[in-house]
Amino acid sequence: MADSRRKVVALAGGVGAARFLRGLVRVVAPDDVTVVVNTGDDLVLHGLHISPDLDTITYTLGGGIDPVRGWGRAGDTLMMAGELAARYGQPDWFMLGDRDLATHVLRTHLLREGHPLSVVTAVIARAWEVACRLLPMTDDPVATRIQTADGRTLHFQEWWVREAAKPDVGRVWLDGVESAQPAPGVLDALDAADVVVLCPSNPVVSIATILAVPGIRAALDRVPVTGVSPIIGGSVVRGMADRLLPAVGVGVSAAAVAGYYAEFLDGWVIDREDAPLADEVAALGIRPAVTNTVMDSVVVTEALARTALEVVS
Amino acid sequence: MADSRRKVVALAGGVGAARFLRGLVRVVAPDDVTVVVNTGDDLVLHGLHISPDLDTITYTLGGGIDPVRGWGRAGDTLMMAGELAARYGQPDWFMLGDRDLATHVLRTHLLREGHPLSVVTAVIARAWEVACRLLPMTDDPVATRIQTADGRTLHFQEWWVREAAKPDVGRVWLDGVESAQPAPGVLDALDAADVVVLCPSNPVVSIATILAVPGIRAALDRVPVTGVSPIIGGSVVRGMADRLLPAVGVGVSAAAVAGYYAEFLDGWVIDREDAPLADEVAALGIRPAVTNTVMDSVVVTEALARTALEVVS
Repeated sequence: MADSRRKVVALAGGVGAARFLRGLVRVVAPDDVTVVVNTGDDLVLHGLHISPDLDTITYTLGGGIDPVRGWGRAGDTLMMAGELAARYGQPDWFMLGDRDLATHVLRTHLLREGHPLSVVTAVIARAWEVACRLLPMTDDPVATRIQTADGRTLHFQEWWVREAAKPDVGRVWLDGVESAQPAPGVLDALDAADVVVLCPSNPVVSIATILAVPGIRAALDRVPVTGVSPIIGGSVVRGMADRLLPAVGVGVSAAAVAGYYAEFLDGWVIDREDAPLADEVAALGIRPAVTNTVMDSVVVTEALARTALEVVS
Repeated sequence: MADSRRKVVALAGGVGAARFLRGLVRVVAPDDVTVVVNTGDDLVLHGLHISPDLDTITYTLGGGIDPVRGWGRAGDTLMMAGELAARYGQPDWFMLGDRDLATHVLRTHLLREGHPLSVVTAVIARAWEVACRLLPMTDDPVATRIQTADGRTLHFQEWWVREAAKPDVGRVWLDGVESAQPAPGVLDALDAADVVVLCPSNPVVSIATILAVPGIRAALDRVPVTGVSPIIGGSVVRGMADRLLPAVGVGVSAAAVAGYYAEFLDGWVIDREDAPLADEVAALGIRPAVTNTVMDSVVVTEALARTALEVVS
């Protein structure tokens, strides 16, 4: 527990972040970890408020995640979704498992009762006995939009899940972000942080989305920032960052992503496969670390989290 | 099809009504049948709007009912409800099957979008290919309340489902009924009706609830009214009318229920077991008919519906 008394804020997207956090909370006391989670992917479907990244992290840290897919509940069924589609002709492109649905029903109910998302997130995290603190980036509605190369405007989830990220991306933007406030606790946690960690998440629609909430990006100037590359050997480990980075003019490489973050990034962990890129990272004024970043076991993940912290210590 | 061109309005509660209606739509062209359904039992649970009587009738006429219980979807599971209870500590006394949930999710979604319950009911009934017309008694919120003998005020479903109808009943009343309007189509259907049928439903919390919506009771003075006793041999066939009739000063007998309706009732079908009560019914100025009223097959039910219509023809 080398870093047991350092206060850490992690900026997080979905599956990659969730796996990384399982390691981080073994290196740092969970009490000292605040996770600020992207909510730009949130969607309302059939009137239910769904927060995919919050759920993935909660289920992963709470031991309820489907271990094969990396998202959704283990051992889930699709009775409700099947009925909604077959009987009522409702869209079923976004998979809503029956167990998973309990979370969406509870969240929607509490939001409708007037509780902000940050309070609802704490209720759900407590039920899953998540030991670190989970915060949505904001309690306000922010929606990631994709304009396809052929001119259609889609919600991020429509592009990614419904259309399998096939349409070329012309532009990415965030509806509502200018007027969004960081959720209560986010700026305080950043002010108190000894280090900020960028989880291995999508740079464009996870990390940049969090940073676009007014006040969060500026807070990074006052604290060491480290991160783990979500790109290995020029490819995404999972997800569709390779489809989105070009839309913001960034190459699909561990070094290019470091460059995307260069204004505030102090340390950057890249995979052994990308060792030749270490000099390119260093040339940006960012301290590189090279290790195994393929999180196929908690042992690897714990070592990865330790490396990410050590590179800026 | 003796009565194929008669316009019929049926006033209906849940399981007993649903079974009876399966027979009625074999005797009368479904196009000529309008069913006005009790919504005083409706509840909002976990933020979901549940209409138990509408669902029971829709699923029964649509072929999706659980044939053993008589309510809920056939072959349903309880994954969502189990998770909501075990993980999130939410109440699970009202059984919400996963397939059934699709109806509640859709209804809640459409209501939140601003559609009235009558429109939502039509959407759901169409999906189930229900051939007759289903109308909620009102689009306005009406809640059946029970004051227990020990002074507690419960929603009807809390008393009936959660507390298994065990607490003695002091008083029954309807919150919101004074300001409720009949749903669009209800008064027009009653005006156009050649006959009104009281389904074998709970007199106190199904039929009387519908009649309490301003305008509906008065409409019965202009049309022959027939009905089927929900009481056989001094007992309820199912449900808890025997616990409620005493609270409104009515005996638990087929004749006493006819007396409860005497102001507007013209014909009354009682079971063979109650044949000795026929004179008592006749003495109220109501034409009795005696037949088998135990609806254990569609053949019996069809004959029962025919008898109910014939007694006032």
